[in-house]
Amino acid sequence: MSIFENTERTEVSQLGEFGLIDLIKKSFPLKNSSSLLGIGDDTAVLDYGNKKTLVTKDLLTEGIHFNLMYSPLKHLGYKAVAVNLSDICAMNAIPEHIAVGLAFSNRFSLDAIEELYEGIKLACERYNIDLIGGDTTSSASGLFISVTALGAADEDKTCYRNGAHKGDLICVSGDLGGAYAGLLVLERERKVFEVDPNAKIDLTESEYVIERQLKPEPRVDIVKMLEELDIKPSSMIDISDGLASELLHICTQSGVGCRIMEDKVPIDYQTDEIMKEFGIPPITAALNGGEDYELLFTIKQDDYEKIKSRSEVSVIGYITEPNEGYQLITKDDKMFEITAQGWDHLKK
Amino acid sequence: MSIFENTERTEVSQLGEFGLIDLIKKSFPLKNSSSLLGIGDDTAVLDYGNKKTLVTKDLLTEGIHFNLMYSPLKHLGYKAVAVNLSDICAMNAIPEHIAVGLAFSNRFSLDAIEELYEGIKLACERYNIDLIGGDTTSSASGLFISVTALGAADEDKTCYRNGAHKGDLICVSGDLGGAYAGLLVLERERKVFEVDPNAKIDLTESEYVIERQLKPEPRVDIVKMLEELDIKPSSMIDISDGLASELLHICTQSGVGCRIMEDKVPIDYQTDEIMKEFGIPPITAALNGGEDYELLFTIKQDDYEKIKSRSEVSVIGYITEPNEGYQLITKDDKMFEITAQGWDHLKK
Repeated sequence: MSIFENTERTEVSQLGEFGLIDLIKKSFPLKNSSSLLGIGDDTAVLDYGNKKTLVTKDLLTEGIHFNLMYSPLKHLGYKAVAVNLSDICAMNAIPEHIAVGLAFSNRFSLDAIEELYEGIKLACERYNIDLIGGDTTSSASGLFISVTALGAADEDKTCYRNGAHKGDLICVSGDLGGAYAGLLVLERERKVFEVDPNAKIDLTESEYVIERQLKPEPRVDIVKMLEELDIKPSSMIDISDGLASELLHICTQSGVGCRIMEDKVPIDYQTDEIMKEFGIPPITAALNGGEDYELLFTIKQDDYEKIKSRSEVSVIGYITEPNEGYQLITKDDKMFEITAQGWDHLKK
Repeated sequence: MSIFENTERTEVSQLGEFGLIDLIKKSFPLKNSSSLLGIGDDTAVLDYGNKKTLVTKDLLTEGIHFNLMYSPLKHLGYKAVAVNLSDICAMNAIPEHIAVGLAFSNRFSLDAIEELYEGIKLACERYNIDLIGGDTTSSASGLFISVTALGAADEDKTCYRNGAHKGDLICVSGDLGGAYAGLLVLERERKVFEVDPNAKIDLTESEYVIERQLKPEPRVDIVKMLEELDIKPSSMIDISDGLASELLHICTQSGVGCRIMEDKVPIDYQTDEIMKEFGIPPITAALNGGEDYELLFTIKQDDYEKIKSRSEVSVIGYITEPNEGYQLITKDDKMFEITAQGWDHLKK
């Protein structure tokens, strides 16, 4: 279990900053040939040769992005890495490195920090990522995780948000709305627990959506699949704020409109059941729920034959002229204008 | 004054996350040709050609690294950038890009966030840095600033911590201990203010050291000077935790000992005066105070002629055999063993 080879309970302060850095360094040997130097000097040194360097950075804060009451630290470490890798994938590129900044109050023991790093390590191992640096420090209260992810890209394969053209097909990977359904379940159970700490909580019927919320996976596999199929998407983004918000990013940056069909939007059976339990239309979870970290991308119509048999990808609509707006055609054939109601951290 | 072109008081929540990102993007036009793409897609895209990519990341947390009672937000933004640029300089390289992650509670208005970004912008302008991305989000309490800095380096010019050899001269830029003296003054005045908010506080006699604490400068000029003088240091580090701690990093990583002379360690007159007022030997501020962000580096003896007339650099000692330990020769010719007592955030 212990990645730090340290089984007794220890306060982080006993180790000190450099002691903790050493432990982290030993637990994360470098894997990529582009990692010339990792932790231990003033900066990491990477060698991307003639490729372009991609950089992204996300900050997760306690009480806003996660609630430690139902978010195990290991999952949290995994998720903090996953959401950043997802951003590199969203450029149609393979992530290779992360730097992790961590600030935590003294209510966290070394065991707790180790658990967090176990999750980080699991994500690094699964996606072949090198941890190359970062910063570990105190906070007056709360836990803050800042991850920077880096990847290399060939310029002619990089996908931006602004390349969608009229007639392109709109695709999404996986299924949508699950992470939001999982959040609703976790929040409901938290409230039950707060009223009665002895209440019996059975989450077996929500396992899939809870995993979608707590442990999202970056779709590195989709980037590799597109490469194998010889498809270069005309635009691409990852779904962190909900399908609606991301679709509007692609459309406004590409100067186009879109039309998507409700019955084509992939929603898992469990998500569907749970959203109905909560009295919310499942399509709302897909459009506005966020945190699914699936990829949304557009491809030329000519590429349809290559991708149509792949179950990991759904074609949900097509790109239109800008003056046609952003349309959702519902299952009963009504048309709605799509508006961005994604999750805005600053409006909470 | 306003970099956001917005003069009325506005809550950040009125703007929303994307509104704030747009404001930031407009206020930070890209300057470097290696910045292919900045804010606005899933990642930034950088082109370092055949050079190596350097990456560093530091996290500043309220109540630990700064106290907003005496740290103006503009200075704080400047410092958050400066300390990261300093890490790139410490590799003997020129920083080019930053990504900024910001988490803040709802006690901060848009004006406050703008003030912070004004400081960030000032540092970007002074050091020709492109802001290329990041993340802006909420925190339950407190302000957290996470900066990732990137730079490009020719492999044959990059200086690591592990290259010092016996006989090399130990050099530092600028003067040391000032940032710590400034912190002592600010903490003293804070306590005076807490007892009597109407007390008259006159800081004119501490201006230099307060500026050293609140607004450190990364020594990009020293990196450029070394290039002009055709000197490649054998090892290099920036002084964030105090001369003692950094010197030990170089010595342990290089497998050498060192001998430095107290009377050669550069200490400003104001630092000297203030430390004596507080009853602390000025050399202690230099050795253990930290946050000066000067460069500590070693050069071959042959390079001495080239550097001896440069007032920005002091030669403070030399590298010895590992079995000679880490020695400080005091002004009265006594020998002390140098131990790391740098500022450890996790032990506070």
